[in-house]
Amino acid sequence: MSLTAEVDATIRRLRVEVAALHAELPRNELVVWTAGNVSARVPGRDLLVIKPSGVSYDDLTPESMVVTDLQANLVEGDRAPSSDTAAHAYVYAQLPEVGGVVHTHSTYATAWAARGEEVPCVLTMMADEFGGPIPIGPFALIGDDSIGRGIVETLRSSRSKAVLMRNHGPFTVGADAKAAVKAAVMVEEVARTVHISRQLGEPIPIPQADIDRLYDRYQNVYGQSRGEKR
Amino acid sequence: MSLTAEVDATIRRLRVEVAALHAELPRNELVVWTAGNVSARVPGRDLLVIKPSGVSYDDLTPESMVVTDLQANLVEGDRAPSSDTAAHAYVYAQLPEVGGVVHTHSTYATAWAARGEEVPCVLTMMADEFGGPIPIGPFALIGDDSIGRGIVETLRSSRSKAVLMRNHGPFTVGADAKAAVKAAVMVEEVARTVHISRQLGEPIPIPQADIDRLYDRYQNVYGQSRGEKR
Amino acid sequence: MSLTAEVDATIRRLRVEVAALHAELPRNELVVWTAGNVSARVPGRDLLVIKPSGVSYDDLTPESMVVTDLQANLVEGDRAPSSDTAAHAYVYAQLPEVGGVVHTHSTYATAWAARGEEVPCVLTMMADEFGGPIPIGPFALIGDDSIGRGIVETLRSSRSKAVLMRNHGPFTVGADAKAAVKAAVMVEEVARTVHISRQLGEPIPIPQADIDRLYDRYQNVYGQSRGEKR
Amino acid sequence: MSLTAEVDATIRRLRVEVAALHAELPRNELVVWTAGNVSARVPGRDLLVIKPSGVSYDDLTPESMVVTDLQANLVEGDRAPSSDTAAHAYVYAQLPEVGGVVHTHSTYATAWAARGEEVPCVLTMMADEFGGPIPIGPFALIGDDSIGRGIVETLRSSRSKAVLMRNHGPFTVGADAKAAVKAAVMVEEVARTVHISRQLGEPIPIPQADIDRLYDRYQNVYGQSRGEKR
Repeated sequence: MSLTAEVDATIRRLRVEVAALHAELPRNELVVWTAGNVSARVPGRDLLVIKPSGVSYDDLTPESMVVTDLQANLVEGDRAPSSDTAAHAYVYAQLPEVGGVVHTHSTYATAWAARGEEVPCVLTMMADEFGGPIPIGPFALIGDDSIGRGIVETLRSSRSKAVLMRNHGPFTVGADAKAAVKAAVMVEEVARTVHISRQLGEPIPIPQADIDRLYDRYQNVYGQSRGEKR
Repeated sequence: MSLTAEVDATIRRLRVEVAALHAELPRNELVVWTAGNVSARVPGRDLLVIKPSGVSYDDLTPESMVVTDLQANLVEGDRAPSSDTAAHAYVYAQLPEVGGVVHTHSTYATAWAARGEEVPCVLTMMADEFGGPIPIGPFALIGDDSIGRGIVETLRSSRSKAVLMRNHGPFTVGADAKAAVKAAVMVEEVARTVHISRQLGEPIPIPQADIDRLYDRYQNVYGQSRGEKR
Repeated sequence: MSLTAEVDATIRRLRVEVAALHAELPRNELVVWTAGNVSARVPGRDLLVIKPSGVSYDDLTPESMVVTDLQANLVEGDRAPSSDTAAHAYVYAQLPEVGGVVHTHSTYATAWAARGEEVPCVLTMMADEFGGPIPIGPFALIGDDSIGRGIVETLRSSRSKAVLMRNHGPFTVGADAKAAVKAAVMVEEVARTVHISRQLGEPIPIPQADIDRLYDRYQNVYGQSRGEKR
Repeated sequence: MSLTAEVDATIRRLRVEVAALHAELPRNELVVWTAGNVSARVPGRDLLVIKPSGVSYDDLTPESMVVTDLQANLVEGDRAPSSDTAAHAYVYAQLPEVGGVVHTHSTYATAWAARGEEVPCVLTMMADEFGGPIPIGPFALIGDDSIGRGIVETLRSSRSKAVLMRNHGPFTVGADAKAAVKAAVMVEEVARTVHISRQLGEPIPIPQADIDRLYDRYQNVYGQSRGEKR
């Protein structure tokens, strides 16, 4: 198989995978209407596969996914890429270990983002998955690299795979698109649980040494294999 | 095709469209039992297509939709029109740019309405979609033009496509019925997210200049086409 | 058709109707596991049709419904009647205008019940449906007529078709079982909306004269026919 | 049938039952992604049947369930057992009357757990099912017997079939796996209802003598048979 044929096969596979993963967003009640998007890096290529802009979740198919380069220029597809493509592309360009990116406006995560307040690490499942609090990224306008830069700078100063962009909502990353979707599900889960806990008092913090122990174990021991945990 | 035949074909199409859009209300958890209604203007005619009164969402079909004039008199259909028809009709009579109207009692939007408190613009998705806060309309009794007038006067003094009628619930408008349904989904989404954010502190306001920039971009650039955005 | 044959046919019809209406309780998220029950009076007979005790919602069929007299003695059926049958039976014995009774532990209604606090009438849909606040019934133990008496005494001093039994949950009544199920759906809806509204301040009361006007209109004018409104 | 053949038949039956019961966790919104697990004791044997680690709820089948001994060593199955198996195994080893164990991170129960605050008994359904407050277990790290010991010690000092492990989440037990799943559903239900009630004031306590009467009646009289109540 020629290199090009191999890349084509990979893109076909990622179109199927990214289309299927989008169904997890409404199923987990992370999005309404056409909000939210999942992307996957095309390994070894400066390309990504992402949802087109303004298409209903019911109508998403492998064929309707689009391919862009890491400057968010359309390379393959009939439709305009998601308006958040520039942010995804910037993350892939800057963070080579990232293979998948997800953005939603999930309710509880966005509620913390609107106050510009990080979610404190008071649950063992947060320590497992995020290794500490969920950090807040800067307020940034769409239209240039501001959102991408805000995501990357915040993720670089944290163990968390999720960042809450101020007044906007969560972005999550992972080794592949599925891991990034899992992080999007988990960030809403912990944002909701900690919110509800704090409504009636102050949750008890977990000591840093215990957070470290939990995070280390979960990242190295848990599940059938990496990327398919809990 | 004669003018009458053309209007008949349009009405048939709108019956299908309006019946299908009603399914979005329970699907997005905006209504319970038989509450809520969607209508569409018949373009170029002083007519509208709306849900009949008191029929279960399971039983709504294109055939069960009814047609009224802009004084809410029944023109076509076997059943009484929705008891909110007068309010829809008044909006179409006064606002020629409106092609669709939706009314629900969605929980969080109605909760702000019960306090008579507008939803502040603290989320980028609110700036995109509504261009500012969601305004409150007056308390008005059903039975004459009061509700319609309250909606129209409030919408005229705002960029928002949604108004929260005091102690009652949201009404939304759009270029067509689908756009009005999208606004009904989005107004509940932002009412819920801002409510939850405020439960634990004060959300950070977005400066007016940034709201203007986001609104302008979203209304003019975003999506595959107007009316099918995000 | 002999009188007995007629009663038999009515009971067969009510078994089908009551079994089908039970599906509305989980569908509207009013119950978990096997909690909750719907009953219908057998018109002209001192009998009622109700759910058996401890059967999963998935397994409810017309045949599994049971028939009791108004002292809650089993008349027809293979299983023990719902443990709440005595309360239903007492209501039918005392309130001849009631044709259906529903009991749930729906979350928000039960939350008001746990504080022993009536739900104030601050929504037009409450004025329409309940004609005022949702009243609180006394704390009562299961095992004798206490619950039934508490329901009847509370409903007699109110226009509401719903009562919140203290520390327990809502009971609703209607002209038939479907109307009582509608009231069960609506009482949770208004309990939730008013709760959420009050979380961030005080909802604005609706003047009594306006409540009266709304209630009167809704009970007499609205919908295709009585019992099938909104 | 030889003893071994009998045990094999029992394990086959429990694989079917435990796989089916797992579907109740997402259905009742107690878990997201791959979180949560149900197990059953193999009667008369020091064995248990449990979910494998890190497998999606959509992919759980009787065949994918695994069997371990009461030291959590894999006895039968292709995959690693759930990472919570040691806690389940410890409970079976210490509490011979327990035939089923369930663990979730259900939102409201976990919110109380994060504050380390027991859920007070202010609902008749809590008195029925749990006989008093839902107790808090100690903070414990995964990796040795700490979680199991915390569960057992807390359950031994309470009538409750549920314990909220601090900063972690609920564990429930029952005579069989189905009863433990019911307790997992009910603990979230009461945690949610009491939380919501307390948001707007203080729920009214139920006197201990009434709790005792309700608990005694429910455990002995209610339902078609034990283990299949309400």
